[in-house]
Amino acid sequence: MRIFVINPNSSESVTSHLSETLNRIKRDDCELTVVCPEHGPVSIESAYDETLAAYQIMPLVKKANDEGYDAIVLACFSDPGLDAAKELSTIPVVGIEESTLHMAALLGHKFSVMTGMARRIPTREFHALLRGVDTFYGSSPALNMSVLEMDSDPAKAKARIIEVARKAVTEDRAEVIILGCAGLAGYSEDIERELGVVVLDPSSVALKVAEAIVDLGLHHSKVGRYSCPPVKEIK
Amino acid sequence: MRIFVINPNSSESVTSHLSETLNRIKRDDCELTVVCPEHGPVSIESAYDETLAAYQIMPLVKKANDEGYDAIVLACFSDPGLDAAKELSTIPVVGIEESTLHMAALLGHKFSVMTGMARRIPTREFHALLRGVDTFYGSSPALNMSVLEMDSDPAKAKARIIEVARKAVTEDRAEVIILGCAGLAGYSEDIERELGVVVLDPSSVALKVAEAIVDLGLHHSKVGRYSCPPVKEIK
Amino acid sequence: MRIFVINPNSSESVTSHLSETLNRIKRDDCELTVVCPEHGPVSIESAYDETLAAYQIMPLVKKANDEGYDAIVLACFSDPGLDAAKELSTIPVVGIEESTLHMAALLGHKFSVMTGMARRIPTREFHALLRGVDTFYGSSPALNMSVLEMDSDPAKAKARIIEVARKAVTEDRAEVIILGCAGLAGYSEDIERELGVVVLDPSSVALKVAEAIVDLGLHHSKVGRYSCPPVKEIK
Amino acid sequence: MRIFVINPNSSESVTSHLSETLNRIKRDDCELTVVCPEHGPVSIESAYDETLAAYQIMPLVKKANDEGYDAIVLACFSDPGLDAAKELSTIPVVGIEESTLHMAALLGHKFSVMTGMARRIPTREFHALLRGVDTFYGSSPALNMSVLEMDSDPAKAKARIIEVARKAVTEDRAEVIILGCAGLAGYSEDIERELGVVVLDPSSVALKVAEAIVDLGLHHSKVGRYSCPPVKEIK
Amino acid sequence: MRIFVINPNSSESVTSHLSETLNRIKRDDCELTVVCPEHGPVSIESAYDETLAAYQIMPLVKKANDEGYDAIVLACFSDPGLDAAKELSTIPVVGIEESTLHMAALLGHKFSVMTGMARRIPTREFHALLRGVDTFYGSSPALNMSVLEMDSDPAKAKARIIEVARKAVTEDRAEVIILGCAGLAGYSEDIERELGVVVLDPSSVALKVAEAIVDLGLHHSKVGRYSCPPVKEIK
Amino acid sequence: MRIFVINPNSSESVTSHLSETLNRIKRDDCELTVVCPEHGPVSIESAYDETLAAYQIMPLVKKANDEGYDAIVLACFSDPGLDAAKELSTIPVVGIEESTLHMAALLGHKFSVMTGMARRIPTREFHALLRGVDTFYGSSPALNMSVLEMDSDPAKAKARIIEVARKAVTEDRAEVIILGCAGLAGYSEDIERELGVVVLDPSSVALKVAEAIVDLGLHHSKVGRYSCPPVKEIK
Repeated sequence: MRIFVINPNSSESVTSHLSETLNRIKRDDCELTVVCPEHGPVSIESAYDETLAAYQIMPLVKKANDEGYDAIVLACFSDPGLDAAKELSTIPVVGIEESTLHMAALLGHKFSVMTGMARRIPTREFHALLRGVDTFYGSSPALNMSVLEMDSDPAKAKARIIEVARKAVTEDRAEVIILGCAGLAGYSEDIERELGVVVLDPSSVALKVAEAIVDLGLHHSKVGRYSCPPVKEIK
Repeated sequence: MRIFVINPNSSESVTSHLSETLNRIKRDDCELTVVCPEHGPVSIESAYDETLAAYQIMPLVKKANDEGYDAIVLACFSDPGLDAAKELSTIPVVGIEESTLHMAALLGHKFSVMTGMARRIPTREFHALLRGVDTFYGSSPALNMSVLEMDSDPAKAKARIIEVARKAVTEDRAEVIILGCAGLAGYSEDIERELGVVVLDPSSVALKVAEAIVDLGLHHSKVGRYSCPPVKEIK
Repeated sequence: MRIFVINPNSSESVTSHLSETLNRIKRDDCELTVVCPEHGPVSIESAYDETLAAYQIMPLVKKANDEGYDAIVLACFSDPGLDAAKELSTIPVVGIEESTLHMAALLGHKFSVMTGMARRIPTREFHALLRGVDTFYGSSPALNMSVLEMDSDPAKAKARIIEVARKAVTEDRAEVIILGCAGLAGYSEDIERELGVVVLDPSSVALKVAEAIVDLGLHHSKVGRYSCPPVKEIK
Repeated sequence: MRIFVINPNSSESVTSHLSETLNRIKRDDCELTVVCPEHGPVSIESAYDETLAAYQIMPLVKKANDEGYDAIVLACFSDPGLDAAKELSTIPVVGIEESTLHMAALLGHKFSVMTGMARRIPTREFHALLRGVDTFYGSSPALNMSVLEMDSDPAKAKARIIEVARKAVTEDRAEVIILGCAGLAGYSEDIERELGVVVLDPSSVALKVAEAIVDLGLHHSKVGRYSCPPVKEIK
Repeated sequence: MRIFVINPNSSESVTSHLSETLNRIKRDDCELTVVCPEHGPVSIESAYDETLAAYQIMPLVKKANDEGYDAIVLACFSDPGLDAAKELSTIPVVGIEESTLHMAALLGHKFSVMTGMARRIPTREFHALLRGVDTFYGSSPALNMSVLEMDSDPAKAKARIIEVARKAVTEDRAEVIILGCAGLAGYSEDIERELGVVVLDPSSVALKVAEAIVDLGLHHSKVGRYSCPPVKEIK
Repeated sequence: MRIFVINPNSSESVTSHLSETLNRIKRDDCELTVVCPEHGPVSIESAYDETLAAYQIMPLVKKANDEGYDAIVLACFSDPGLDAAKELSTIPVVGIEESTLHMAALLGHKFSVMTGMARRIPTREFHALLRGVDTFYGSSPALNMSVLEMDSDPAKAKARIIEVARKAVTEDRAEVIILGCAGLAGYSEDIERELGVVVLDPSSVALKVAEAIVDLGLHHSKVGRYSCPPVKEIK
């Protein structure tokens, strides 16, 4: 099977890092193409960034359909443009947020979504409702460290991440921790070892869900909410 | 006060019609600028259309802020780009969907949102949840007539509209009818007279809510969900 | 337009203060009559007080209808007698609680309702459900100061108000603060300046929503929940 | 034990009928006093009627407390004044609506509340939310017969009641039928025999719940929502 | 009336203690048979224990039906096997959890369920949803003391119980405390006296609800969810 | 990887059929062991059957753990004993109901669960709540044909299945159809071709989700709700 992975931000280094991670865990019979749009924001940290990115990925969704891929993975934790992509596409589109939230629901009573900056906490809470899994939502603890800071002082970053995750487990009773922020990738084993909870890396989860969907011969329903958009003049 | 009205689709005739309607009902001390983006879809009937339109209106939101307007009205019933616009803007942004749904909640026990095509029914239901008013959501009856058909045979359109609204009132117990489709403008008095229910025209409601918000010296909160987007490289 | 404002408690000084506040912000084309019932409790701090007040305002609702007013504003934050008033009235009735809660939903992700005494916290939480906006409800922090205490030591009151509001913003992530208690009027600018959040004064919001509804030629639906009460013998 | 039953409407014939019904099913060790207010509406069919009745029953709630009764039953299906009565009272107050809805939740998956006139359907639906049992709410089918009509043609009434209940069972999948209207008393056995479902008579349920509460030495919590109202001037 | 009480765990000492407690509060016209299964876990502290116990009580449910009892009380706070028991039984089956949670809903705005070990907190929260009363759920504070520890040091146990209950009242705003753990029986008066809240002992509440249901001639509905299981081969 | 599939009913023919189906779709690197308990009901059509089956599968869950399998699939649509199995097991346990309902949530706006007999409709609705996906629940249409009847007249069965599914799509707006009944296996392609919706076979979905979870090195969280049951005496 051939899966087309779209990193919705325009950062080539993030894309290349994502490609490495996913190629390491993909099945042998799965071939990945990992791309990002040429234009748009280099990272996605606001609804404004999501709006710009969603626009840029529409042609990539069409391209994956035209070139006969078996599925698309949308690899940004807010799933920007997911509904539109499902409308445009007849091959399955798997958002990393939606697939990870539903996977978390299978694995524990409550999940907490770790996020970079406190300003995104309401969005994380709102998206749990948007994706229909608010029953399982525990909290969204913020690191309040920029990706730059995490990169420049990994020891401090690790300590901070463990501290924040511990608070989620102890105070919010999180049973599953979701790494809802690119800067957190690479720390999942530390969190698991320290806290004994399950830790989900969204891109990895989404790839495996996409493989499963392709294996099953499934796709999203094209009746109703995700039916193809009417053809019309676009100025 | 000066209010900047954005028609998110790129149709000049719709924009001009909207301008006439709103200028007729605006307060004397209110001055309107009604615009649409140069590019983008000529009508908005899918999440894909919403994605394209949301992108195009971002510069218009900035322009309204730069030029010192007092408020922005986003005049498409799906409120495309609303969250991003609230982030970008420090002046109030009023979506016609959100303001109309909350107004409906003040006026009756259940509302029904009339829509053009059946494929949008799940979206109407989903948006009631998205806007936090699902308790008041009754149904979303579809006309299954294109805007073209409505234009070419107004008598048939009117009969169909009354029939569908009557079903919403009788079977879904709608107490408020929302005209969630441009083609329906102009029929509200007929529906009210025939069925005795309250009928809301979303653009009109949004303008009056915007006037009220400006009068009160209010704006959306810039703390949390709608805080300004971080500045960053946009390729 | 002529708007009839009912202060449901029987305090003439509160009524006169309310009249001044609302006359300061009303539109030029709007004329206000601000009244309170002759009998009933002088303040409303319990469901018992609400029950007594609701009874006393029924004749005032009828009077406003008989005398051809365009709308009624019910100016007590628990909206006592609101459903009954909507049944009795064919002109729009706007409760300050319901209109403010729905306005808050347009302006931020979560609101907190400041209240006087802790015993009213369950009521504030319950009313968020009653008014259909529990998705937006953040918290209801209590001042635990009587109105008398606030009056006699304004500096202490102000410090306490800021402290309690800050906790709502920091711990409950409130983005909008609602002043759900008469004693708090006059402190909104201090809270906004200190905390950067939006602060709503319920009476002011309700008046502006009422003006907007009258402008739109709307009223609550008389089909279903708010239909006129059956005529019958009242002993 | 001594239980004080308040019929919130002012009809002496209804009160006397209620007294007979409840005296037939009360425990031997239970003594009933069944009263109605001297003033107020003779029947309760609107929020307006509820508002008038709630006011009239407050002195009766105090009287039952002063005279050392063990519990109060409020015998009108909308539970008018229930929150205020719980505040005023230190002896338990059992509303027939709340106790019957929670009993229904123990006895089946969904309940339907039969009601007299269609105008009260939204109220029945709303009260299921108000009482916290909306998960169990199935529907509220209306008879659309006045109590007068039911009285004058019992055969027709019975046929109509069975027809409406059958629709609730078949189409709304009701497993429990609640007789939410005085005119329906006396038909429960017919419905049970014809349809095989459980039928609840609210006054009877409330009396037995009150007896159980007294037996247990319980009362509603006086901490928080139902704490005693502050003492104040009532003009 | 004759009520058959099943203690789902296999501990004879718990059964005998339960028998004493219930016989002390039963009505004079009520005769109790209190039994436990011969096999199964001696206490129920996990879903695994519930699964084992549920299996063992099925024959006891049949026995109570065969021997003409009037009702069954299932006396373990998780209500193991409740749905199956209702299917098997034509006489009413009252679970102590479901009856106590609904009783709590009549007595206060929020309840807290005290539990033994923290590992059961998610179950308590989940069961509030399962029983349809999550609106009233406040919290589930854990004692983190084993029953053995409570037995060996009653003074310490009492101090700990009061401390934990006080936190529920103060921080979670509990108005009703439910003793969701056998080890807590006997401390209700201390909690009431210290904290002024209402305290419910589940077994006692269930017995009184069962007596009330029998008095009313009611049973759970045998139409739909609780209809008799199809007869089939059981290997 | 080695996956242990438990058919919770005791029917060897169903087990053998399940084994064939799953072996056809499993990955090459996946080895299946498909078993059923020696004792218990031959089919599961009630909460009573679930209770008996749940008990019988506990030893099989232990066995799979002892013998070093990588995951367990519980293959009965009601997921009997799922919580207990997750407690007992340190390897992942995937219920076919929970995994299919969450997969359906990724593929469409609303799902409908086809069921055999109308008596199970409340259970299907209740389980959507139990599994936390009630937002996506559309309906549960019943075939009202026994498995025997389906077997003896396949042409009639097929016609009936299409008819019922069409009603779900047209009237309940189902976008995804779930075959919640063993007798329906084998008709999914017919439904897809006739109605254009997505059809899910629960056992197949669960197997692929289990493979994905094993690939990801995940398991359910052993902190909190699914922590290991306390060791104790089982009589």
